[in-house]
Amino acid sequence: MGLELCRVVLVETHYPGNLGAAARVMANMGLRDLILVNPVADPADHQARQMATHGEPVLAAARVAGELGEALADCVLVAGTSARTGGLLRRQTVRAPDAVAPLLVEEMRQGRRVALVFGSEPSGLGNDAVTRCHHLVRIPTAPEFPALNLAQAVAICLYELRRAWDRLQPAAEDPYAPADFAAQEHLFRQLRTALEEIHFLYGPKADSLMHGLRHLLGKARLSEMEVKLLLGLARQIRWYVAQRRDEG
Amino acid sequence: MGLELCRVVLVETHYPGNLGAAARVMANMGLRDLILVNPVADPADHQARQMATHGEPVLAAARVAGELGEALADCVLVAGTSARTGGLLRRQTVRAPDAVAPLLVEEMRQGRRVALVFGSEPSGLGNDAVTRCHHLVRIPTAPEFPALNLAQAVAICLYELRRAWDRLQPAAEDPYAPADFAAQEHLFRQLRTALEEIHFLYGPKADSLMHGLRHLLGKARLSEMEVKLLLGLARQIRWYVAQRRDEG
Repeated sequence: MGLELCRVVLVETHYPGNLGAAARVMANMGLRDLILVNPVADPADHQARQMATHGEPVLAAARVAGELGEALADCVLVAGTSARTGGLLRRQTVRAPDAVAPLLVEEMRQGRRVALVFGSEPSGLGNDAVTRCHHLVRIPTAPEFPALNLAQAVAICLYELRRAWDRLQPAAEDPYAPADFAAQEHLFRQLRTALEEIHFLYGPKADSLMHGLRHLLGKARLSEMEVKLLLGLARQIRWYVAQRRDEG
Repeated sequence: MGLELCRVVLVETHYPGNLGAAARVMANMGLRDLILVNPVADPADHQARQMATHGEPVLAAARVAGELGEALADCVLVAGTSARTGGLLRRQTVRAPDAVAPLLVEEMRQGRRVALVFGSEPSGLGNDAVTRCHHLVRIPTAPEFPALNLAQAVAICLYELRRAWDRLQPAAEDPYAPADFAAQEHLFRQLRTALEEIHFLYGPKADSLMHGLRHLLGKARLSEMEVKLLLGLARQIRWYVAQRRDEG
């Protein structure tokens, strides 16, 4: 059980490419329940299927509904997206996607079905749809250009849903965990010796240069793999110096 | 000065629609500096311009570079996107967009130019590009389908950039500020009186019903406008009861 409890409902979508790209990003984010309310574009259109790529099964399984209420009947929480202001929306709280996604995820965790509703490209959701949404989502934009492409709006909302979902999973092991202090100190000692041998570090400025190097490497938050890489470099420098000495 | 200090660099983009949709979402999010490195698609193509809509000026002003280094020369910080794992990427920290966006914004605040780099649709960024990025960004997805549509990946990254930028601006006045406690209590008194007059509240269950109503309205975090709406309702109920009484 997971994000498939979130249905995507596209109302009166006009462009086949948007149907396909929406289905694709649903597959990317782990969703598969797609309902098209009175679609203007044909989901079997060539361009829709081309844009869907690995989301084609989602597109092929999409159901068509004649009316929004029919598409939402078994959902306990419904969020609609709107770039509009004014009209009905003056009476309603409009939130950013990252504020609404956790509310949807909370219901999904209880095994309940939820929905994200997107209006048509020319005009967005109508008043009758807006008034039936429990939450309205507006994606933050530059004030001059609030109207996003439909498939990009779907991508951003599903990205936030995925993020909210992933935050609830047990944390995976961090593959970039920094090396511990002792490993770093060992590295700095080896580096210092190697750099002294090639006379990069010598005389009164040696400490200050080494401090600069330590600081630089400290900022980089070295992983264990990176500590090994630099230890190998230090070893190689010393090996090279020893070779030259033997030759000399 | 603002988000226009972030350049979007598209490397060897194949599909004109993706050039257009990328330019559109740049306009949505307040960016305008677009460089195309060896584009396969023609930015003057009909479909590119159609997808660009209000982003057409961004697309028309896009510069073409023959090589990635040329496109990045004046940038102090470069983030590349990659859905790949393995190869060079095993040696590199890969972060989610919300972790990298604030680093880019921090440089932009100092008036410095930064860049977000996106690879071609069939294969993403090559090793030579990956190795020149200071940070690599991977958009979290379902593990089975990591490869996002290019224009949707651009949308998600610029959305996070916008969010990181907006967080640094002085907070705008919250248009949905909840009404204060005194206003809510006044509402509850008026509502109670009105509901008693129509005998919705009466007898031993009155307190419990009123408690349920208070709790329901409390959860909704009423705004001042909503308090006024419900006060109007309570007033209207009392007016209606008074009318009936006069008639009777």
